[in-house]
Amino acid sequence: MNVVALAGGVGAARFLTGLVRAVDPSALTVIANTGDDLRLHGLHVSPDLDTITYTLGGGVHPEQGWGRADETSTVATELAQRYGRPSWFTLGDRDLATHLVRSERLAAGASLSQVTAEIAGAWGLPFVLLPMTDDPVETRILTTDGRDLGFQRWWVGERAAPAVERVWLAGAERSRPAAGVLTAIEQADVVVLCPSNPVVSIGTILAVPGIRSALLPATVVGVSPIVGGRVVRGMADRLLPAVGANVNAAGVARLYADFLDGWVIDDADAALGEQIAAQGPKVAVTDTIMDTVEVTESLARTVLGLA
Amino acid sequence: MNVVALAGGVGAARFLTGLVRAVDPSALTVIANTGDDLRLHGLHVSPDLDTITYTLGGGVHPEQGWGRADETSTVATELAQRYGRPSWFTLGDRDLATHLVRSERLAAGASLSQVTAEIAGAWGLPFVLLPMTDDPVETRILTTDGRDLGFQRWWVGERAAPAVERVWLAGAERSRPAAGVLTAIEQADVVVLCPSNPVVSIGTILAVPGIRSALLPATVVGVSPIVGGRVVRGMADRLLPAVGANVNAAGVARLYADFLDGWVIDDADAALGEQIAAQGPKVAVTDTIMDTVEVTESLARTVLGLA
Repeated sequence: MNVVALAGGVGAARFLTGLVRAVDPSALTVIANTGDDLRLHGLHVSPDLDTITYTLGGGVHPEQGWGRADETSTVATELAQRYGRPSWFTLGDRDLATHLVRSERLAAGASLSQVTAEIAGAWGLPFVLLPMTDDPVETRILTTDGRDLGFQRWWVGERAAPAVERVWLAGAERSRPAAGVLTAIEQADVVVLCPSNPVVSIGTILAVPGIRSALLPATVVGVSPIVGGRVVRGMADRLLPAVGANVNAAGVARLYADFLDGWVIDDADAALGEQIAAQGPKVAVTDTIMDTVEVTESLARTVLGLA
Repeated sequence: MNVVALAGGVGAARFLTGLVRAVDPSALTVIANTGDDLRLHGLHVSPDLDTITYTLGGGVHPEQGWGRADETSTVATELAQRYGRPSWFTLGDRDLATHLVRSERLAAGASLSQVTAEIAGAWGLPFVLLPMTDDPVETRILTTDGRDLGFQRWWVGERAAPAVERVWLAGAERSRPAAGVLTAIEQADVVVLCPSNPVVSIGTILAVPGIRSALLPATVVGVSPIVGGRVVRGMADRLLPAVGANVNAAGVARLYADFLDGWVIDDADAALGEQIAAQGPKVAVTDTIMDTVEVTESLARTVLGLA
């Protein structure tokens, strides 16, 4: 069974640890959001690609869910204290090696997909990891106080405090899906939407021209990232109102109404099942709080079962 | 008194710790070799500029004489072990911050002199530090076994083992002295040749068109880097034969015969004094082994006295 997963960062990476136990990973393609990518100290940082790579490669910081285990920050401290460089974005030393490798290869003319494959290879990932696009795109947050911030600046730099007027993907209209993205979707028996942010993770992937329309004929099943009207992690609650969606499992499903075939919600949201089913998708209700790899694998099997 | 010093790395930096005690540092301009610069992991590394900066800024590794004190190598270890990147050139974590700052600024369009001034400012250097050129140049070593190696590759990567056929500065003919270099030499009351490698440090600076001829009318006094027929540090003994020079204090002085006005040699080489003086320059004999800052300051005062 060919499986494609659309993925953001921490939540998606956690979900994928269960998915690779539920499917043959060699038939899995993960398409990750790159709208959060940023240049920092001249380096190309791809937070979601790295979070997935470190998590599935066994090197992630276990409590944080992002960054490296046993991490230090000697370089970042020096950059800040000696050279007065900005320090709002955490940059660990081990993590930095990945950014150096990526940046060097990009500067040498490699595409982001090529570099991503090379890094994934170094980590022994058993599936294909693709960036949504090789083109430069950038999630921008327009705040209600009139500022236009890069996503990481708003989220990490300002802790998602400024109220959001609008979210958009700069460069989207000129971007193309990375090589392999559309083919993987076409050949997929099921496309899984990981429990990721519907606006700046899944929504961003969908903003790359060609991807959303490729999902229309596909079998698409997703996991709600909203449980009991609250985000499990991240800041989707700050962004959903800006796209006119309710902050609950039904509101998110509605954003995907044109292509969604199945929607997995948490036991806590069982009462929303009927309302969601009335919108079209089949609904499954289960434990979606991925505290253990067993729960996570079980969740993945529920998703596949719904497909 | 306006003083200009032409400088390589470790030996020059050590000498400068004495020179700044012997002159008003605000009237001192140090012009450093950049032929050893290299790109590593996509970053622009300037070993001699950094050695001078760290040494005079109080951050150098005291035993090594290069690199940072209290240094770690987390990033380099990760680059080598995780990503199979070359590890022949030591790259410490604190040191890496400097390379990141330099590379980011160069990529943003700053010149090497601008960045060097910014980095020197961050370290509080009390003198002007200039790269010899802002243009890309590269010291190359042609070995007798027919290989064409970058300098650091030969020196650090192969421990200077391969015998040297020829040394040349790639890009020299198209390079120009960095802004401020020729003016500083013109306005100098004395130009000091630090006890640096006569081939790949001082020789490289002299290979930038315009610098050697600017020295002709100047008062130039140097310190021999060769004591008792042996290098104090580095590998000049491996390079002097390739330029047809004897490995002794007289052989080095002869390389500078067209512009050298004074030459300071070690007590161990007192017997060479007459031979050198016969070539033209005035000679002073003193302790040139810079074991303490007092000896080093005394050496600097001898140099200035000779001028």
